[in-house]
Amino acid sequence: MALADPQTLIADMAARARAAATGLAAMDSAAKARALTAAAQAIRDAEPEILAANALDMAAGEERGLSGALLDRLKLDPKRVAAMADGVEAVGRLADPVGKVIERVDRPNGLVLTRVRVPIGVIGIIYESRPNVTADAGALCAMSGNAAILRGGSEAVHSNRAIHAALSKGLATGGMPADAVQLVPTTDRAAVGAMLGADGAIDLVVPRGGKSLVARVQAEARVPVLAHLDGINHTYVDGAADPAMAKNLALNAKMRRTGICGATETLLIDRAFADPAPVLAALADAGCELRGDAEIRAIEPRTRAVDDCDWDTEYLDAILAVKLVDGPAEAMAHIAAHGSHHTDAIITEDAATAERFLNGVDSAIVMWNASTQFADGGEFGLGAEIGISTGRLHARGPVALEGLTTYKWVVRGTGQARP
Amino acid sequence: MALADPQTLIADMAARARAAATGLAAMDSAAKARALTAAAQAIRDAEPEILAANALDMAAGEERGLSGALLDRLKLDPKRVAAMADGVEAVGRLADPVGKVIERVDRPNGLVLTRVRVPIGVIGIIYESRPNVTADAGALCAMSGNAAILRGGSEAVHSNRAIHAALSKGLATGGMPADAVQLVPTTDRAAVGAMLGADGAIDLVVPRGGKSLVARVQAEARVPVLAHLDGINHTYVDGAADPAMAKNLALNAKMRRTGICGATETLLIDRAFADPAPVLAALADAGCELRGDAEIRAIEPRTRAVDDCDWDTEYLDAILAVKLVDGPAEAMAHIAAHGSHHTDAIITEDAATAERFLNGVDSAIVMWNASTQFADGGEFGLGAEIGISTGRLHARGPVALEGLTTYKWVVRGTGQARP
Repeated sequence: MALADPQTLIADMAARARAAATGLAAMDSAAKARALTAAAQAIRDAEPEILAANALDMAAGEERGLSGALLDRLKLDPKRVAAMADGVEAVGRLADPVGKVIERVDRPNGLVLTRVRVPIGVIGIIYESRPNVTADAGALCAMSGNAAILRGGSEAVHSNRAIHAALSKGLATGGMPADAVQLVPTTDRAAVGAMLGADGAIDLVVPRGGKSLVARVQAEARVPVLAHLDGINHTYVDGAADPAMAKNLALNAKMRRTGICGATETLLIDRAFADPAPVLAALADAGCELRGDAEIRAIEPRTRAVDDCDWDTEYLDAILAVKLVDGPAEAMAHIAAHGSHHTDAIITEDAATAERFLNGVDSAIVMWNASTQFADGGEFGLGAEIGISTGRLHARGPVALEGLTTYKWVVRGTGQARP
Repeated sequence: MALADPQTLIADMAARARAAATGLAAMDSAAKARALTAAAQAIRDAEPEILAANALDMAAGEERGLSGALLDRLKLDPKRVAAMADGVEAVGRLADPVGKVIERVDRPNGLVLTRVRVPIGVIGIIYESRPNVTADAGALCAMSGNAAILRGGSEAVHSNRAIHAALSKGLATGGMPADAVQLVPTTDRAAVGAMLGADGAIDLVVPRGGKSLVARVQAEARVPVLAHLDGINHTYVDGAADPAMAKNLALNAKMRRTGICGATETLLIDRAFADPAPVLAALADAGCELRGDAEIRAIEPRTRAVDDCDWDTEYLDAILAVKLVDGPAEAMAHIAAHGSHHTDAIITEDAATAERFLNGVDSAIVMWNASTQFADGGEFGLGAEIGISTGRLHARGPVALEGLTTYKWVVRGTGQARP
């Protein structure tokens, strides 16, 4: 069957998604959870088909010369399929925000106003090579009552189709509308453009992938986007920091996993901090490349020269820019000038200084005496995440079910006319 | 002094606004309220200057042949200046959302997470001929801790400058940063384009004015927009409606004030409703032009023919489209097809039908047994409003101080590293 042009295709999918969203919005939490359990089982049952489809993608990827890292992201095995199914089921056990009354106002004229959480509507997810996003994102959207339009990367096309077929079949068995989770059937890049331009038809787009994907989506989208482009995160070691804690947290914040968006990229150290040498030595010993000026090299000779670009770079690697500052004010000014409003931490035993930092730093997540690597929906107790937002509106930081809802005002009267 | 080009001008103003926002975010509620009281007093003190400036605008407007309605919007007198000053002071008495803890999560590892309301940052307000918006919007932004960039209509340029000068002076006397509320000094329309394109520098734009202004802003903006384009609101009279209440509410919802966005534009009547004739007769008697098909004309002969466009028209006038429907399902389908997601009401004595309507209608405001004319921040107990949003993200319906805030995650630890 020939596919329609991308504009028509997306408009048609969005219209079907809108109709499905009406049905989804009316489902109660137990019904949605049952559908997700059925979907998890369908994914388990389809393991042979999913692995066979994945083998096609892996073969094509090897032929195209994809890097080892990309191939690893693409690869599925029985354990990963099982984890994907378990993840879908776990989303069904999360607290459902839909229907929650956020606020109630009783007016003198007898009107009773409530603000009630409702699904956003139609969510577009644009992602790259990880096929598990098909299941994860589909499940999060469905549980929050939203219809999803998924557009995965071309390198995972067979895997995505097999996972989507199982997920969809399971959700339908469990009583969800057939169009609750749709997969864009073409890998034509113009379909992404059509999604990004579908203002009013798609309510929100969430890009899941590398910086170039996010940058393209943010630049082109007419639809609101929930995303972060950079995680240029800072850990500031205050003069009043506990030296052992400072060493431990700096090491963890940078080196636990260097490729995640919550990793610290710049270490700011107060000149009043007594003991910077062991902190920097521990980082260098752990294989971290330090970049700093002469002052830093005097403390840790294994430091390379820093240049101005370093302060604005998300390394996502075992590289750390290091700078001495004169107290929290200079640290906060540096973060304001170079940060990406993602996650920034202070290490100090001085509660007043900590509060000043927590209030004054304008980031989605601000931390006191903790590793920036905790910036994660699971670690925040959200149970999952659709992404982390550095935008300022609607939702900031890790976003899970609640961030996929909005609210409406419900006004109950007894015949009140406005005077 | 020659002004910079619009791009540079707005970039410069936005940078100063960002710096001011940092200071504003740190002010407590009492300090902000004091500054607004000082601003109100400064407006009262500047009454002669404001009225003299307004006289210049009125003379220019008359010379340009502005309509009577436009001139009335533009006109200030001692009473209107006093009301403007009182309004500024009243905003200072509203509950301050900044600093409010929305949620607290205690994690098993000892991390304590709170989500705390913070100002959005830099808000652009683009408005037309009403000079009082200069004071109202400036006060709402300042009280919610946001820096404002105001861009008023060219026909009110002298009035706006005089009001802004007084407001600004008062706020500064009261301890606010000098750039807390800035007025774009040029009436060059390119400055609006520069504001709409200032993604990242301006966090949110609120257009205040007619449909063509809102449409332009929504079409051009790269910055998020909080607005409504249309208020195509419905009142549905269910078969189980109380006839007297139906008559009273239909009349109020349409005719109390026909030019406001909460006015009902389409009346849907259940064929099972026993008594439609008195409802339609009351409307026609009150001077409302009814538009409907033969079925409606058979009930009320003063009805004009309706055409397909009527269902999608916001009259903002004493005109009402009327349609008979087969129960709540058809009413809801009509609203889904033709509504603008603003305000829709059901009149019924059947609680189950009402709940079905309240849940199923996807609008910012849904009402049961109340007039759609209550769609207003003041009537909702918000004390004021910066606007009404029909967008689905961030804020819906009437938006006041809380809608001008966002949140951040504050994480307090005792040295936790992520395993």
